[in-house]
Amino acid sequence: MKVVIIGIGLIGGSIALDIKRLHPNAEIAGIDNREEHLDRALELGLIDCKTTVETLNEADWVIVSVPVNTAVKLLPEVLDRIGDQTIVMDVGSTKNPICEAVQNHPKRRNFIAMHPIAGTEFSGPQAAVPGLFQDKTNIICEVEKTAFLLQEKALSLLVSMGMRIRYMEPKSHDRHIAYVSHLSHISAFMLGKTVIEKEKNERDIFDMAGSGFESTVRLAKSSPAMWTPIFQQNKTQVVETLEEYIANLVHFKELLQNDDYEAIFNEMESVNKIREILNGIGIKK
Amino acid sequence: MKVVIIGIGLIGGSIALDIKRLHPNAEIAGIDNREEHLDRALELGLIDCKTTVETLNEADWVIVSVPVNTAVKLLPEVLDRIGDQTIVMDVGSTKNPICEAVQNHPKRRNFIAMHPIAGTEFSGPQAAVPGLFQDKTNIICEVEKTAFLLQEKALSLLVSMGMRIRYMEPKSHDRHIAYVSHLSHISAFMLGKTVIEKEKNERDIFDMAGSGFESTVRLAKSSPAMWTPIFQQNKTQVVETLEEYIANLVHFKELLQNDDYEAIFNEMESVNKIREILNGIGIKK
Repeated sequence: MKVVIIGIGLIGGSIALDIKRLHPNAEIAGIDNREEHLDRALELGLIDCKTTVETLNEADWVIVSVPVNTAVKLLPEVLDRIGDQTIVMDVGSTKNPICEAVQNHPKRRNFIAMHPIAGTEFSGPQAAVPGLFQDKTNIICEVEKTAFLLQEKALSLLVSMGMRIRYMEPKSHDRHIAYVSHLSHISAFMLGKTVIEKEKNERDIFDMAGSGFESTVRLAKSSPAMWTPIFQQNKTQVVETLEEYIANLVHFKELLQNDDYEAIFNEMESVNKIREILNGIGIKK
Repeated sequence: MKVVIIGIGLIGGSIALDIKRLHPNAEIAGIDNREEHLDRALELGLIDCKTTVETLNEADWVIVSVPVNTAVKLLPEVLDRIGDQTIVMDVGSTKNPICEAVQNHPKRRNFIAMHPIAGTEFSGPQAAVPGLFQDKTNIICEVEKTAFLLQEKALSLLVSMGMRIRYMEPKSHDRHIAYVSHLSHISAFMLGKTVIEKEKNERDIFDMAGSGFESTVRLAKSSPAMWTPIFQQNKTQVVETLEEYIANLVHFKELLQNDDYEAIFNEMESVNKIREILNGIGIKK
């Protein structure tokens, strides 16, 4: 079993760890535009060797885990180079631009468009962790465009990694994920910005910030190189979510300015049901 | 050592657990306007008995851990009733209204105004946890208004609970805490609201929301009964932080609408330094 992972960071590296665990004889080769990532991935045992796109025709599996702006350019080239039975999977956080980029490719049937909803705020090969995908949702888009046999093989691997598979149209995926993921990131980044701007003396943040702030702002540690192209590709949906979020914040502020504390209480109480929803996520884990 | 805890929830209950651990012979009595909280606190062994404000004159310590709107009304009455050597401490998340409420009280010297920055999104006696305050910051306001001997006794107890003590003016406390705590809560509540409104089918949130969303929205589980009076008492500061936060979100949205991805990248990169600040919080733990 020959695997090539293009982009050996948090997600690519974690997939490598799972494949090694499940298929000890698999040979995993890495491609990355940052040589130091490849060296680190070798040291960490995520990959067995470095390779180049010239060897893709020999691969059984190609995992493309690169920023989404790179993915749309790279995927057609990857499909150009692979063998007839090679399975190519991407893991990007936007699905519509990626599905469009390959829709007319003669090897479209070798491709699985997916988004495993798993990760941390860290990046690079050192961020890879075994079992990252256990009980995590993986959304596959346009599964009907992948060849039957390759669908079956891919599903078998993904399920063995512990993933819960769901199917969705690319546009629906991008619309929903804007709410439950992209907006959370902007919310955290702008919260971090607001506090940093105000608290020029970082010692004050350091001393007064508790675990609540830490939790709310955690995603502001995320990689701008990964997230800028996600916001770019999902611009329309992200702008819409931001407008709704801003409108809700403005409304809350106005309630406060009008001393309408009964309404403020009710706002918060109605959002409290997020508890049950999050407990649901907890059970899923 | 006789201790009375008024408001036996997350904070009051956790203080009770620490006092029991540090002073096994302490007698801890509870007062709460919710009888079921007192019963639960007895069951959980947080308190030894129920009591009433009539017994406050016999107490060595009185811990007032009630919503801040109750605290401003209750504290003068508590001070009216205590003995000469009783130490009264409050734990509210706003400090200026509380300090003002007792500033001219003849027993002001028996009072310590403090804010231990510790907690979880849960509430009630069942949310109490031992060691909650270990390595957590506790901000004491107007310490110079407390009698020397009582300052010394209080500090000794608080330090033995593992708290890191900092001193601050009440107004500064309220201004800073609006950024690092109050704003985080509103940000989380409105994020939760935005997502719930959009995703009428909760199953979609359940399935697509990952740990990032969970972390960012965690504080939206918090108690409206506790938080409404905090926002009310710190209204001016909270409105100011909200205005800055909203302005930053609007700016980010405009960058996106103008396709200025270089600026978006730079915005996020400059906030990434929150990593080091949060690592600081981590070290503190």
